[in-house]
Amino acid sequence: MTTHVLELHPDRLLPADPATRAIARALYDSVKGLPIVSPHGHTDPFWFAGNAPFANATDLLLTPDHYLFRMLYSQGVPLDALGVRNPQADPREAWRLLAQHYHLFRGTPSRMWLDWVFVHVFGMEVSLSQGTSDLYYDTITDRLATDALRPRSLFDRHGIELIATTESPLDTLEHHAAIRAENAREGGWQGRVITAYRPDPVIDPEFEGFATNLGLFSDLTGEDCFTWSGYLAAHRQRRAFFAGMGATSTDHGHPTPRTADLSEADARALFETICSGRFSTQDAELFRAQMLTEMAAMSVDDGLVMQIHPGSFRNHNARLFERFGRDKGADIPMRTEFVANLKPLLDRFGNDPRLSIILFTLDESVYARELAPLAGHYPCLKLGPAWWFHDSPEGMRRFRHMTTETAGFYNTVGFNDDTRALLSIPARHDVARRIDCGFLAQLVVEHRIAEWEAAELAQDLTYNLAKKAYKL
Amino acid sequence: MTTHVLELHPDRLLPADPATRAIARALYDSVKGLPIVSPHGHTDPFWFAGNAPFANATDLLLTPDHYLFRMLYSQGVPLDALGVRNPQADPREAWRLLAQHYHLFRGTPSRMWLDWVFVHVFGMEVSLSQGTSDLYYDTITDRLATDALRPRSLFDRHGIELIATTESPLDTLEHHAAIRAENAREGGWQGRVITAYRPDPVIDPEFEGFATNLGLFSDLTGEDCFTWSGYLAAHRQRRAFFAGMGATSTDHGHPTPRTADLSEADARALFETICSGRFSTQDAELFRAQMLTEMAAMSVDDGLVMQIHPGSFRNHNARLFERFGRDKGADIPMRTEFVANLKPLLDRFGNDPRLSIILFTLDESVYARELAPLAGHYPCLKLGPAWWFHDSPEGMRRFRHMTTETAGFYNTVGFNDDTRALLSIPARHDVARRIDCGFLAQLVVEHRIAEWEAAELAQDLTYNLAKKAYKL
Amino acid sequence: MTTHVLELHPDRLLPADPATRAIARALYDSVKGLPIVSPHGHTDPFWFAGNAPFANATDLLLTPDHYLFRMLYSQGVPLDALGVRNPQADPREAWRLLAQHYHLFRGTPSRMWLDWVFVHVFGMEVSLSQGTSDLYYDTITDRLATDALRPRSLFDRHGIELIATTESPLDTLEHHAAIRAENAREGGWQGRVITAYRPDPVIDPEFEGFATNLGLFSDLTGEDCFTWSGYLAAHRQRRAFFAGMGATSTDHGHPTPRTADLSEADARALFETICSGRFSTQDAELFRAQMLTEMAAMSVDDGLVMQIHPGSFRNHNARLFERFGRDKGADIPMRTEFVANLKPLLDRFGNDPRLSIILFTLDESVYARELAPLAGHYPCLKLGPAWWFHDSPEGMRRFRHMTTETAGFYNTVGFNDDTRALLSIPARHDVARRIDCGFLAQLVVEHRIAEWEAAELAQDLTYNLAKKAYKL
Repeated sequence: MTTHVLELHPDRLLPADPATRAIARALYDSVKGLPIVSPHGHTDPFWFAGNAPFANATDLLLTPDHYLFRMLYSQGVPLDALGVRNPQADPREAWRLLAQHYHLFRGTPSRMWLDWVFVHVFGMEVSLSQGTSDLYYDTITDRLATDALRPRSLFDRHGIELIATTESPLDTLEHHAAIRAENAREGGWQGRVITAYRPDPVIDPEFEGFATNLGLFSDLTGEDCFTWSGYLAAHRQRRAFFAGMGATSTDHGHPTPRTADLSEADARALFETICSGRFSTQDAELFRAQMLTEMAAMSVDDGLVMQIHPGSFRNHNARLFERFGRDKGADIPMRTEFVANLKPLLDRFGNDPRLSIILFTLDESVYARELAPLAGHYPCLKLGPAWWFHDSPEGMRRFRHMTTETAGFYNTVGFNDDTRALLSIPARHDVARRIDCGFLAQLVVEHRIAEWEAAELAQDLTYNLAKKAYKL
Repeated sequence: MTTHVLELHPDRLLPADPATRAIARALYDSVKGLPIVSPHGHTDPFWFAGNAPFANATDLLLTPDHYLFRMLYSQGVPLDALGVRNPQADPREAWRLLAQHYHLFRGTPSRMWLDWVFVHVFGMEVSLSQGTSDLYYDTITDRLATDALRPRSLFDRHGIELIATTESPLDTLEHHAAIRAENAREGGWQGRVITAYRPDPVIDPEFEGFATNLGLFSDLTGEDCFTWSGYLAAHRQRRAFFAGMGATSTDHGHPTPRTADLSEADARALFETICSGRFSTQDAELFRAQMLTEMAAMSVDDGLVMQIHPGSFRNHNARLFERFGRDKGADIPMRTEFVANLKPLLDRFGNDPRLSIILFTLDESVYARELAPLAGHYPCLKLGPAWWFHDSPEGMRRFRHMTTETAGFYNTVGFNDDTRALLSIPARHDVARRIDCGFLAQLVVEHRIAEWEAAELAQDLTYNLAKKAYKL
Repeated sequence: MTTHVLELHPDRLLPADPATRAIARALYDSVKGLPIVSPHGHTDPFWFAGNAPFANATDLLLTPDHYLFRMLYSQGVPLDALGVRNPQADPREAWRLLAQHYHLFRGTPSRMWLDWVFVHVFGMEVSLSQGTSDLYYDTITDRLATDALRPRSLFDRHGIELIATTESPLDTLEHHAAIRAENAREGGWQGRVITAYRPDPVIDPEFEGFATNLGLFSDLTGEDCFTWSGYLAAHRQRRAFFAGMGATSTDHGHPTPRTADLSEADARALFETICSGRFSTQDAELFRAQMLTEMAAMSVDDGLVMQIHPGSFRNHNARLFERFGRDKGADIPMRTEFVANLKPLLDRFGNDPRLSIILFTLDESVYARELAPLAGHYPCLKLGPAWWFHDSPEGMRRFRHMTTETAGFYNTVGFNDDTRALLSIPARHDVARRIDCGFLAQLVVEHRIAEWEAAELAQDLTYNLAKKAYKL
């Protein structure tokens, strides 16, 4: 078993052509040190409220990362051996499974993010492999016990200016309250952690526990959430509460981007059907559609930016879902249609300057055909960055190549890391900066924009657009 | 406010790799001076008939260009401030709005076309920006008053060999008649301007004023266009008239490429339903479908080449349409299906050597999957160039990369500018020549074709294929 | 008429950038001599059983190649003049038609494969053209008469380790038996030629002669194939027979990848409807869907790897089909959906380690959206290489760029040539090796993988993955 050196080349991900690479490198050098703005993600606010150290390599890097165990599972590694829903699993043995199969990740973003973390956070100098598995496990686990690797230190050390987390309306936001108290304390930690309003559990009638959730929603707000007016009032109340905790955005993870604009009477009748529990899948889809428009109406009033993340077939693997639950790497993208689906909402609010909607997709065939033309026309629409499976070098390149000519750069919103993996945040932003600078360099070397424009754009794509689009 | 130099680099849009660029440059040099053949577009024949000077920068370059005001509108600039349907708007102030937002166009084809016009037509040497807005406005407006910038001079100066415009069957073609008279006059202007038969207003039952149009169609032709046989006879008559005015093609802008091949009795019954005004959207779609096949039948007889431009959801923004009308940048592409949709027409005429159909799409996902395989088999089918949002460097590259291996080059038809913007015509053809030469250079440098073949192909793609496909 | 030199450049198809090309060249040099494993294709086992010489250039290279005559037909060359279903056609004249139109193939893979054959098999030194047509025809036809160009010699000379052919369950496999007898003979030819089980003729109710085929299936197996249990037993019996003749895989060419998992009673009732001949297109589709799941069930037992090749609209040109029959270049790809379609089968067997399914597509829009996420999760799923129209340099590049980041390399299965054209097999594998090495070189030069990893991957993509995936 040979051991290989692990190094991160300073030019990684920059275009191969020397002239283009030189321009890209200069652009990248001008933005690599800018603060990280993370306006959409899924880190746990408890980390920053409590600031407890992470336990070990497996618990930190493997067990919570469905990008990793989906790939291992696809090659026959059982999930329970990795410690997924299995507290009996030995974390050191689980780590060995990762190490032994690390070649599976060649050419994937997971590999790049992990290597970045191994080098920059843990100082590793050899590649992860069967032979170095224990060295890795011990080194990482040891360092996690040091103060420098507690959550707040990591936040500060990596130049994070702001992180948005994502919470259900049923969340009490106590961790956010604790962080704000810490921020306000004299000499307290100054990291800025805000929430975002993700109402799927009380909007999607097919969400597990939906009826129970409406009961909790009533309890929490004092509204009768089984009446249409009480239900809407509860949303308004929680949105205001979330905004008070720093939220500047909402987030909607529906199966499709369908919207509707029913009359008040029809909307109420539909809601009653939903509350009765005797609804069809069509009713559920129509209710989600109507609620996107209701959320837009509230955004017109309270200014929260809407994010729509459609097109994932959740929990596609039925047996795995039964045994291991949600978010186990079995969400599969579906074809997604925006032009007809968004029309009812756009017919009502598409020209309202108070509304801002950021669209994401897992279906790249809509970038050039639907999303760029929509965002290049409607004042309320912006394009979120390449998302999830497409949050990758090739994915980002396709995004820029297919959207820029029609939507321009200024109808996009900078980068989102969208992650639960705190350590990967700087690695992911670094990839985005490199790829964007490479794309800008291509435009310069083909004389499609001037170098001074590319320099401005690099700042905008890295920092300014996210701040503006998310009202930060 | 810094002022930046405006220069067009001689190597713009050529590939970055030096060896590839050298080959591309040599190919481009061999075709850059070839005459422009513009077989499909939307310039106004009145310009060439009347030869009056254009009024000012805004009226010429901004107000008629929906590529420009769609982007400005997407970033919150009101259309009336730009002078769209608002004669009160100050054209100088409108121009300032463009100048101030010119950065929005970075990376877009509009920016390249405009810069080309600024340099080559108006001799500008600094970039358009807030600080240079009035300089631009005054320079352009002044020069427009000179003879060198009248329509016929521009036509000649830019080496245009032929322009096809597009007219409704209800058009009397008086401007074309005037141009032909001028052509025939001793010492008269020799520019060749032909028409194309675009029957949507009398074929699409959902077109504004369709019923009225059938009445006008009857008046113009002396046929009773409310009977199926009279209606078809009227088409035949107008097609012959258009062909007499130089037309070699028809053009069909249907929502989908659906075709049908009904029995005569069913077609007649459907037409009666359409004429009654009590038709469903399905009836309208079926009628358009049947009429594509009827048009193909007439093309078999009279030799006019059919162009099918499907897949645009017209006037998607309902409020904007109410207030500002058609063609205001709110047409959004839709997913488009060709394989099943074209089958009825192809079953009837697909193997007839007298028929020629040129297919366009806004849905790039069909290039490799449907269009290239269809055009690589059926003798009647050819592929139109990258269209509309895809008439851009990246769009053209994707077109060549996704169609060439299956359809070859010789089932494509050269470039179309498809524009209303006279000044942009040479800029657009120049982009196409550069991108095609870059693509050919890639094939050469990868040793997939020989240099002598690339040289032949450059001539064919620039000039010969358009002449042949459009029978010019 | 100029005659042009024909040369195959040693660096053809490698990336243009010099640093990338150097890496690609080194990788290619390390794999170019590896044995050819051809686990899926359509060569005729009779060739190897009989080892008779091929007749002439046209019969060998033109008449059986629908890639060639589809392109010629698209430009107006009549099929009968090429000798397709026309024994009267003069093969020398047919060859002249190809020579005269050889420019149509510029930029296509057919051109590359043919040129490879011309140089490496026939030693040609000038390009094929009208002027060299007879030289080509005579040279090729003469050499075909030599022993060196008999099928077994070609097999050995090109380093083919194994070829799989594809047969119907109704095939008696006598040629395979003859080859195995030859293999077993002392001093006999050692080429390994195996079969694959392609049951479409007895599974697809819309296949020509389906009812007759069920009768033959009964005769051959002694089962009553008009009863559900007899029909399934017949499949099991023939699968075992095919496995005995070396088969390690089955192959399914359905219009869609739809699967179903009916109750036994419903499946039996559906089969009875199918056998009655009074079935709807929906019934036929559901039956094919159910049979994919039945085939998966049998694969769990007997270990045959399933291949699913969906999405081709067969015989799209109705008149051509009537006159010339199947496989005449008129098969057109259709949009294909995998996520919902595969779910019934995956719900039943998706986590079973005994099952292996290789998915192919003609719809590239599903690579990144559906196929890579599915293969990157389900242990039973692997991705077949770029197929048919996409078995081309650009097609292979898109495949790697769109699947690698999500599925990795190790959920792919190496290259398939999928051809009837024996001589093109080494040419096709050579293209795949060059393109894969070019892609790996890009990853190296962008510092996404190390050179030692690329070297390992080059071996895996060229040889190891095919052996493993097909259990060879």
